Amino acid sequence: MQTLNHYPSTIQRGIQRQNACRATVLLRGKHSRCKAATTLDAAAATASKPVVDVSLAPHVMVNSCTGRMGHSAAEAVVRAGLTLVPFTLTGYSAGVAVSNIGVAGIPVEVVGKERRQDIMNRIREQHPRLIVVDYTTPNCVNDNAQFYADNGVPFVMGTTGGDPQKVAAAAEAAGVYAVVSPQMGKQVVAFQAMMQLMADSFPGVFSGYSLSVVESHQRNKADTSGTAKAVVQSFNKMGLDFKENQIRKIRDRVTQLEAMAVPEDALDGHAFHTYTLRSPDQSVEFVFKHNVTGRSIYAEGTVDAVLFLAKKMQEGAQQKVYNMIDVLREGFLR
Amino acid sequence: MQTLNHYPSTIQRGIQRQNACRATVLLRGKHSRCKAATTLDAAAATASKPVVDVSLAPHVMVNSCTGRMGHSAAEAVVRAGLTLVPFTLTGYSAGVAVSNIGVAGIPVEVVGKERRQDIMNRIREQHPRLIVVDYTTPNCVNDNAQFYADNGVPFVMGTTGGDPQKVAAAAEAAGVYAVVSPQMGKQVVAFQAMMQLMADSFPGVFSGYSLSVVESHQRNKADTSGTAKAVVQSFNKMGLDFKENQIRKIRDRVTQLEAMAVPEDALDGHAFHTYTLRSPDQSVEFVFKHNVTGRSIYAEGTVDAVLFLAKKMQEGAQQKVYNMIDVLREGFLR
Repeated sequence: MQTLNHYPSTIQRGIQRQNACRATVLLRGKHSRCKAATTLDAAAATASKPVVDVSLAPHVMVNSCTGRMGHSAAEAVVRAGLTLVPFTLTGYSAGVAVSNIGVAGIPVEVVGKERRQDIMNRIREQHPRLIVVDYTTPNCVNDNAQFYADNGVPFVMGTTGGDPQKVAAAAEAAGVYAVVSPQMGKQVVAFQAMMQLMADSFPGVFSGYSLSVVESHQRNKADTSGTAKAVVQSFNKMGLDFKENQIRKIRDRVTQLEAMAVPEDALDGHAFHTYTLRSPDQSVEFVFKHNVTGRSIYAEGTVDAVLFLAKKMQEGAQQKVYNMIDVLREGFLR
Repeated sequence: MQTLNHYPSTIQRGIQRQNACRATVLLRGKHSRCKAATTLDAAAATASKPVVDVSLAPHVMVNSCTGRMGHSAAEAVVRAGLTLVPFTLTGYSAGVAVSNIGVAGIPVEVVGKERRQDIMNRIREQHPRLIVVDYTTPNCVNDNAQFYADNGVPFVMGTTGGDPQKVAAAAEAAGVYAVVSPQMGKQVVAFQAMMQLMADSFPGVFSGYSLSVVESHQRNKADTSGTAKAVVQSFNKMGLDFKENQIRKIRDRVTQLEAMAVPEDALDGHAFHTYTLRSPDQSVEFVFKHNVTGRSIYAEGTVDAVLFLAKKMQEGAQQKVYNMIDVLREGFLR
């Protein structure tokens, strides 16, 4: 059990609650998720094939828990039974660092840029197995990556934007372990990778077929889905002749509800994709769909990336910088 | 132009009709299909990247055109502009070899087992670039394969049943080129291969997810879809725990029409499959469907296998025996 003296009492209670849950971490399979601090016994009963040494389970700092994605990721960290570091660095300025927030009942202290080095020194002392998760904003991606690298702290960069190559280079130069991926939805990444592999392995397999692509997202997403565009590229290698502007973008709520069957409570946050292939004589139809509501797929993928990094650190792996395909290839992580 | 003197005049007309179409064969892409003998000019206008030397286009004998699958394959051969050899060996006994049949307007003479060697000698003389397609019955698969091998005739074995390993061994021993595959539906084979590859590459990617599998086939199909079983095996490697007996088999017409949207005219011949994956919190859903009606997917795959063999023969490839994955890997064949 870690020393709690450095933290205020509310935070101590949170850490104790997490520690109760932590022993369930890193058990393989679906039973490993700690739904509440009291499910320890049930989880222990299903223990099998631990992937990472429990005593080496990572402690996770999520920046920033004030954002919606960061908050979801922090909740997933707690849900997975990992230790959430009760500090969060805010995205850009110290201006917003005025109040503390809670994640899954655990108080988390918001830290502005002017205090971040002091706090990081303290955290590193208290949490030697620290891994940082970054869900901030595009304009601080590279500055944050450099900060983590300078502090020798491994990190998962889930924030989109910035210059991902510079992020990777910063980690590489500092010899810091990192997963850098603009798309943390593990299963969607796997689907996309498979379509690419299918195109590379079996070019022309759908030659002569016709394609339709429909994607639906919340109203304020102006551009066409990047995933749909990437999948269309793969289909074109498979023999289709489909233009990006033929992708049907659905942004109006009525069509979303009626034609796409988007749940009403997901209208403001969803990513639905349907690809339909038909043979020239219409006798063959293939349909591929991936429909995501909310943020949990990304949050869970983030936890997988954290566990992956913990494993690589434990193994002392030569390679330092990874992406989600590497995480996927690793297989079962919990 | 081949010598036609050996055939009766009705057969000669058929061959002339095919020859008018044959020049369109083996042009890459969707324009290569010869819809009627008069589309030659249109097809020639789109000529690009010939894959196989037109003068080396194979002549195809389909055994047996009296069966539904053989008849469909022969029609696809003609549709693709290939030369259909106007003889067909019947499956088992000479007893059924009493009348001639026509494929796409081309008369085809039915040949029983007692005449098959004589006719084969004549065909080989007339059609040095002969490739045989076999859609017969399980009980003559191995005998037929041996017969083709003994005659040094390359073949595509599309008949299910028999002993496929012996079929391959017969071709191998005789140094005869062959494609041996119980499933000629190229796109379905590709889908199945991709699911397997996804399982091998990303084990556990759907860990914690739930799965439902529904398949619908014509009423007289008693067993569970072999494709569904194979795909379930792949999903289990991806982290599911799904039993074969959990596959929902639909054989009643009302459910087929209403729940599976099978077209009414396909109730007696279809293969519909739907796989649905859901995350533990139901926020993520993946759906994969492959719905086939009729036989054209298998017939078209057979033509692809024929063109593939023609290409391998032209290249003088070392490897003699192939499967549909090899055909898929070859890419664009027309």
